[in-house]
Formats: sequence, structure tokens, C-alpha cells
Amino acid sequence: MSIHVTVWNEYRHERENEYIGSVYPQGIHGAIAQGLTAAGFDVGTATLDEPEHGLTEEVLANTDVLIWWGHKAHGVVEDAIVERVRKRVLAGMGLIVLHSGHHSKIFRKLMGTTCSLRWREADEREILWVVDPSHPIADGLDAYFEIPEAEMYGEHFDVPYPEAVVFTSWFEGGNVFRSGLCWHRGRGKIFYFRPGHETYPIYHMPVVRKVLANAVAWAAPGNGPAFTYNQGAINERESVHPIPEKQSDRVRMG
Amino acid sequence: MSIHVTVWNEYRHERENEYIGSVYPQGIHGAIAQGLTAAGFDVGTATLDEPEHGLTEEVLANTDVLIWWGHKAHGVVEDAIVERVRKRVLAGMGLIVLHSGHHSKIFRKLMGTTCSLRWREADEREILWVVDPSHPIADGLDAYFEIPEAEMYGEHFDVPYPEAVVFTSWFEGGNVFRSGLCWHRGRGKIFYFRPGHETYPIYHMPVVRKVLANAVAWAAPGNGPAFTYNQGAINERESVHPIPEKQSDRVRMG
Amino acid sequence: MSIHVTVWNEYRHERENEYIGSVYPQGIHGAIAQGLTAAGFDVGTATLDEPEHGLTEEVLANTDVLIWWGHKAHGVVEDAIVERVRKRVLAGMGLIVLHSGHHSKIFRKLMGTTCSLRWREADEREILWVVDPSHPIADGLDAYFEIPEAEMYGEHFDVPYPEAVVFTSWFEGGNVFRSGLCWHRGRGKIFYFRPGHETYPIYHMPVVRKVLANAVAWAAPGNGPAFTYNQGAINERESVHPIPEKQSDRVRMG
Amino acid sequence: MSIHVTVWNEYRHERENEYIGSVYPQGIHGAIAQGLTAAGFDVGTATLDEPEHGLTEEVLANTDVLIWWGHKAHGVVEDAIVERVRKRVLAGMGLIVLHSGHHSKIFRKLMGTTCSLRWREADEREILWVVDPSHPIADGLDAYFEIPEAEMYGEHFDVPYPEAVVFTSWFEGGNVFRSGLCWHRGRGKIFYFRPGHETYPIYHMPVVRKVLANAVAWAAPGNGPAFTYNQGAINERESVHPIPEKQSDRVRMG
Repeated sequence: MSIHVTVWNEYRHERENEYIGSVYPQGIHGAIAQGLTAAGFDVGTATLDEPEHGLTEEVLANTDVLIWWGHKAHGVVEDAIVERVRKRVLAGMGLIVLHSGHHSKIFRKLMGTTCSLRWREADEREILWVVDPSHPIADGLDAYFEIPEAEMYGEHFDVPYPEAVVFTSWFEGGNVFRSGLCWHRGRGKIFYFRPGHETYPIYHMPVVRKVLANAVAWAAPGNGPAFTYNQGAINERESVHPIPEKQSDRVRMG
Repeated sequence: MSIHVTVWNEYRHERENEYIGSVYPQGIHGAIAQGLTAAGFDVGTATLDEPEHGLTEEVLANTDVLIWWGHKAHGVVEDAIVERVRKRVLAGMGLIVLHSGHHSKIFRKLMGTTCSLRWREADEREILWVVDPSHPIADGLDAYFEIPEAEMYGEHFDVPYPEAVVFTSWFEGGNVFRSGLCWHRGRGKIFYFRPGHETYPIYHMPVVRKVLANAVAWAAPGNGPAFTYNQGAINERESVHPIPEKQSDRVRMG
Repeated sequence: MSIHVTVWNEYRHERENEYIGSVYPQGIHGAIAQGLTAAGFDVGTATLDEPEHGLTEEVLANTDVLIWWGHKAHGVVEDAIVERVRKRVLAGMGLIVLHSGHHSKIFRKLMGTTCSLRWREADEREILWVVDPSHPIADGLDAYFEIPEAEMYGEHFDVPYPEAVVFTSWFEGGNVFRSGLCWHRGRGKIFYFRPGHETYPIYHMPVVRKVLANAVAWAAPGNGPAFTYNQGAINERESVHPIPEKQSDRVRMG
Repeated sequence: MSIHVTVWNEYRHERENEYIGSVYPQGIHGAIAQGLTAAGFDVGTATLDEPEHGLTEEVLANTDVLIWWGHKAHGVVEDAIVERVRKRVLAGMGLIVLHSGHHSKIFRKLMGTTCSLRWREADEREILWVVDPSHPIADGLDAYFEIPEAEMYGEHFDVPYPEAVVFTSWFEGGNVFRSGLCWHRGRGKIFYFRPGHETYPIYHMPVVRKVLANAVAWAAPGNGPAFTYNQGAINERESVHPIPEKQSDRVRMG
């Protein structure tokens, strides 16, 4: 049973800047989609300037894992679409947020925090250490991997306590960063992965593609029980275990 | 140095229903404030129908820990005030959310999930077991305590993984519930505490007051480092550790 | 690629007591092995009174997931075998500890705590609620399942903070218990599952077998990076990133 | 009510090596004790070569928080004393394990893992970033602090998932390390803190002393409920909630 991935990309940098266009001729989404297709997933793409940002109800209903890359146009993403994505995540769709997506509306809404961090553009060497070697997202990796030139992201990263920290990055200029972080929200699994920037060919790197493929496999929906909650005032005694009649004299509320 | 607590209450049930008014003649906030004052805290109150819901910038700036009780008027709370409270929590103010406050705007916004659950009004016996006896919120308690008659809240409770589970409730009708849950958001600590309903005198109970006093002490702000993030495009090489000059040929982005 | 499971059982109750023998004619290990075989796993068994408790180096080397059931003879298990199992867990073998196995040497050694709990034999109804519906061990289950008659295990359960709590049990007599708990130790995944007692036919129940099959799939080893540590005093400057020569005047230690 | 701290030190390096003796003329324990005394704690010391390693039942019974520094003589520490310390931790005593204490018997016994790591002696600059600014152990610190010359410890660090990660270290040679880690075991709180080596004057640094003082305050025992477990076969129906008589035909076991 194939896993359906939708790679969402802001897709503006690549069209507006010649250098960036040369790094990602098919767009960042195109590069990521290529890697995931080669890994055996069923992959589609969606971009900001398509109708409904490419994220119609139908597209989302058929998406097992959504990958999100945005940077300079977070504010343009419509709130109604963000809420639509959020509901799909809570219902079980996996979400992988990449790099500058840390400030996307969807990530901040699911985290509840500012998701802010320190950053610096100085073409720094980045070394990513696997700090949770038993995590499925680390499958097939070595003890560390590196990115020759990267934008720096540094702690403190203002996100809720992660359920797992898969990678921690070292940067030439003296910073560290939790670079691969896992959470649940509702039935959906979320993975934040730091590497990637519009001016570096990071999403062409085999090791980065390996991590993304692992993350998609990890984030794919499971088959756990439905979340059934009370929808309104039932105010009745229906219970799994019988409750004896009470002699309460209190006024029952609606 | 005294800890300043603000007890926020919707305060409508008590004024609109005679029975509830008899259970909480000074309002739910009044009962809670009485308990916390006796425990040595500096306590104020605020309610929904005051200007700005009683939560002005000044009140919040002087609040170390905010307690939140709401039920039937969550939708009436203004979004701007909710966002103001959220910013104060992220900046370090503790937040204690009580019972039906699980569906309040502020709690859902900080959690990112639906915060839904199962419930039933059948005057059930509730037994709360301490499942984390070393947690400061369990200080001075016995292995369990009970509430003679309570509204039932049952799992699944749709919240993010808690950082600590202090209590788990048993209900007569066959349900269980994680009843005392801890999280951080930004610099602020959050505690959700299940017990309490407008029709039961739960906030008059000494053991419940003990838990609330413990929770206030736990949630009070610390004195950790400020969260300093990049506020805009710095795009420079300032770093803790010196970075050698690079011979990069890429076009630097703003 | 098949997953190899070894089901370990103390296997004394069944041989020494006629009633228990009638509940588990093939032994508890036989009942569990039957369920896992039907689920498609490659299953072997081992018992206390075999040479080396059936857990030779060869058996363990070929085991992906070990299931452990013990009760009245924990003290008879040889320390050297326990240490052998522990090393295999740290190297990646999954471990599923059942019911009274909470007091086994292997579980206590991996946890570091007493692993004590409350218990009562009163044929109580047990209702297990899924509190983490997105966890793979909950795949295919309903919101809760029940066991008609069970020995009670109650909190506080003295184990380290679990990484995930999949189930929480309700018992007729007023107790609750975290019934499905996950940890890592080294590369190995550990799942503790409460249900099961020598006098109840619990391991014949389809829902319990479903949980065990899910747990085996979850606990099977991954393919993350090897744990390579320094084995002795290297005391040299080999590093991933070059370190400039220092002018240190301190005496270098061996 | 004063907090009683016992600083335990192997105390051999300082006596056997002149250079190390010059760095810590009063021993590592003396330097640490000096800092904690100045912070207002009631401090004693104990060393390996004292009778019972200085850790008599009486000393431990009067210790709220034990600090542990060892390096080259871990194997000489008697197992019976290690077990005595472990029981005190499970009963509530805080434990702070420093630097090379990661391989001490007591730490490995409480963790259940190898506690191994990578290391290198190359006088590297270490920068410790606060990754959990709201944690009490980070009180009064800046966003980062540094140690001019340090032995490197690098990931992967083979310990169980920490409950909190307060610091992460950056090292000149390209490594990162989770440098301040929190766990519970039983009622006791445990903090592992990486900095410190016999050849560097790290325990004389004010910022390191500040961290140790914060850690002692955090690890001091609370006042939660006693851990009362069943000590033997009670096999009776005593329960918090009444259990109806059952018509079970099964043979009751002892």
C-alpha cells in the first residue's frame, strides 16, 4: 500500500532569483519530490500560488504525509488553508516541516510557541550528529553527516519539549541546534528537519534525501482507534461500568 | 518575595443559577482565591464581564501565575485578550487551567490540539492516584485522594504528550483520565488540573486547595536567560567562535 | 525479512498446578507463540529449566524481539544470563516484559528502579483505555478493551518516566495503572504490558494477541548507526573539525 | 531548613599527580564544597579511601543531595556501597553526577545503559548553550557560557531519554554533547553535568558553581506521598472501591 506524499513549496525564490533558480531548476519541491519518488513513495506537489495553495480538501484527504517548505511569504498563506491543514494533521496526516518553515503559520499553530531561533548566513560548515541512533529516522545513517556550507540556526529554539531529538547540529561559528525533532498532535506525527536553504543544494544531497525518506515512513498514519469525543450535552448515565443510582439532591445542569 | 496570582473566572453560572450560586457564593474565583490567600500567596481576581475581561496589560504584567476557569462562554473571550495572555505565558507567566477550561481558547491555542475528551454527568465517585510522587505538585499528599461526586472526564484526552503526569483519575463508570498534566510553552509553565465543576463544592476541599497551592509554587516564573532571537535580516558573520573567510561564489541573499 | 521472536517463560506454574495447567496446556509461552505465529512472525520459545534458561548466545544473537514472562522464580534466573540479555537489548534486540515480569531481574536492571506496584487478587474487571491512539502498538484497536477477570495492578508503579504510555487500566476496586509503557535502552526498545496472569486465559484473547503482535513489530530492531565509543585512552587530537595547535602549558594526562 | 549536601570525590588524582594537586589543592571535593558553602548549603565531603568510602548509612541518611566525582577508580567502589547509595536515591536523595562520573557504578546502575560516549583531550574550547531556559537549573545564567579549555565529550551518549536537557555543548573539534541532563529514579532526582576534569580549574569557575548550586536546589527531596507497595501475598479483597462478590470457580493461588 503506497504512501502518498505531497511536497508543498512557497516556490517564489526560485522564480524570482536567477542564482536560486539555478540551484533548484525544478523548484525546491521538485528536488524533494525527485528524491522521494526514487525512494518508492507516491509523490505530488503543491505550491503557494496555485488556487487554494494547491491544498484543496481533496488533495489533503489523499495525502498521508505533507512536506512544508516556506520562507519569505509565510504571511501570504491563507488562515483558512492553514486551519484545513491543521485539522488533517490532527486527524492523522504526517507533517514534515523543513528549515525556514519553522516560522510558517502551520508549524507555529501546532506548536503554540513563537518557534523563533538564532540564525546567521556565513556559509558555515554544519555537522549533524545522530543523538538517537535507535530512532527510525536515523535508519541507515552513520554517526554523523555534514553539510559543507549552510545557514546557521542556533539555540535557543522556542518549541515545546520534543518527544524525540534525532539530530543535533554543530556549526563552525560556535552554535548548536536540535536539528531533527519529533512531536505528535492529535493522531498526526510531526517532524521538524533543519537543513535546507534556497541558496544551497542541500535537497540534492543523498544523505538528506535518505533522512526525508525515513521521516516520511515514520510520519505515515497508523491505524489506531478513532478519536470519539462527546459532541454535545449528553448528560446521561451511559457508562462502560454500571453506576448505581445516586440520591443526589443537586440541580442537574444542561 | 511574594508570588502574585490572578484567578480568572467566567463567573456566569454562579450569577445565573441559584443552586450554583449557593455552592459558590463568592464565585468560583472567590473560593479559589480564598484558598490561595490562606496559603500565603498575593491573590487578585478577574472575570469575563469586566473591561478587557479584567486582564489588562498591567494586570498581566503583575501576574506570576494565572488560574483559568471557564465553561459555557469560551467563545465570548476576545481573541486579542487570548493572544495577550499567550504572550505573557511565553514570556514566563505560569498558567493553571482548571476542569472545563480544557476547551478555553487560551489552552487550545497553547496546546495546538482540540483538547477534547469524553464526559458524563452522573455524580460519580472520583479517585485521583498520584502517579508521580516525586513531583512538587504532589507535595504533602497521600497516595490518592478522592472526590465524592464529580462530573466524569475520560480518555482519550487530545492534548500533546505531557512532560509530567502527576495524577490519574479513576471514575465509577469505568473511565480513567490523566488529571494533572504539565507542559512548558516558551518560558511559561502550564498545569492542567481536572477536578472542579460549577455544581460541586470541589474548590472548597482542603486537598484540592493543597494541589492548587503546590501548582502555583511550581508554575511561578524562574530566572533563566532571556530568549534573544534574531529580529530581522542581519546577514552578517558575527559569531561566538570565529569563522574563517569563505571563498563562496554564491549570491548572498538579503 | 521475517522478524524472529523468542518467547521466554518461567514455565513452572503450569507444570506444578493442575488448574493453571488446564488454562495453559502448552504453557504460557505456547499460547503466546501460537498467537505470534498466526500473526506471521518466526517464533521460538525458551524456558527457565532448559540449559542456560534456553537463552544461549546463539539463540539471543538470532532473536529480534524477546518476550519475558516470569513470576515466582525470578531469583533463580542466573545473573550471567540476565547480563547477556541486557547486552543484547542494548545492542538492539527488542524486549517485551509481561505482567509479573515487572519484578524480573532483567527488567529491574534495565530500569534502575524497584519496579514495585500495588496488587490484589479479586477477579476484578479491567478496562484498558488507549491513551495514545497514534502509537503503533494501538493499531487496529478500539478506544478501549476489557478483560473480564484480572489480578489488579495499581499505581504507583515505580519505573522511570516512560517515553510513551499506550494504555491505562481501570480496575473495579478503584485503582488505575499505566498498562502499556515504552522505553529505549541503548539501541533496544522495551515495552511493558500489564495484562496476563497464570490463572486467567488472557493470552488466548484475540485483542491481547493483537497488542503483542503490534508490540513485536514496534520493538523490532532498526538500522540506525552503530554506537561507536572510545574504548580506551586515545588522548589525541583526531577530530571531525580541525583544532588549532594550543600553547597549553598543562601536563597532559594518560 | 537547610539542604545538606555531601560531595563525594575519588580523590586520587590530586594526591598522586603534582600538576593536578596544584589545580585542586583541597581536592575536587574541596573546590566544589567551597562553592556550595558560599551558596548557603550545609556541605560535607566524603572520599573513596575513607572507611565505607565515607558513605556510611548515617552520612547518607543525613544527605539531601549527593554529588559524585570519580574517574580512574570506578571499579574500586564497593558494590554494597553502590547499592546503599542507589536505595537512598530511590528513597528521595538527589544525585548530581559530574563529568567522568558518567562511568561510575552508581550512575550506570541507575541508568541501565553503558553510559558510554566519545572523548578527546585536546584543550578544546567548549561553549554550553542553554536549551531549556525555563528550567530552574538555568536560573541566573546567560544564553550560553563557555569553558576556555576542556576535555571533549561527544555524542552519542548512551543514556536513557532524559526528562529535560538543560545544556548542549559545542566543541572546537566538531562535536556536540547533551551536557546537562535530568531524570528521576524512584523519588530521587538525578542531574548529570558534563564540565569538569582533573586537569582544568573548572570547579573554580563562578558560572559552574552557579549551575551546581541551582542543581542542588532542584535535586533536593520533596515531600510527596510515600511509596507503599505490597510486600507479599495479600490475596484479599481490600480495595478503595467495593468489589462485589464473584462466583469465580477458579482455584485461588497463594
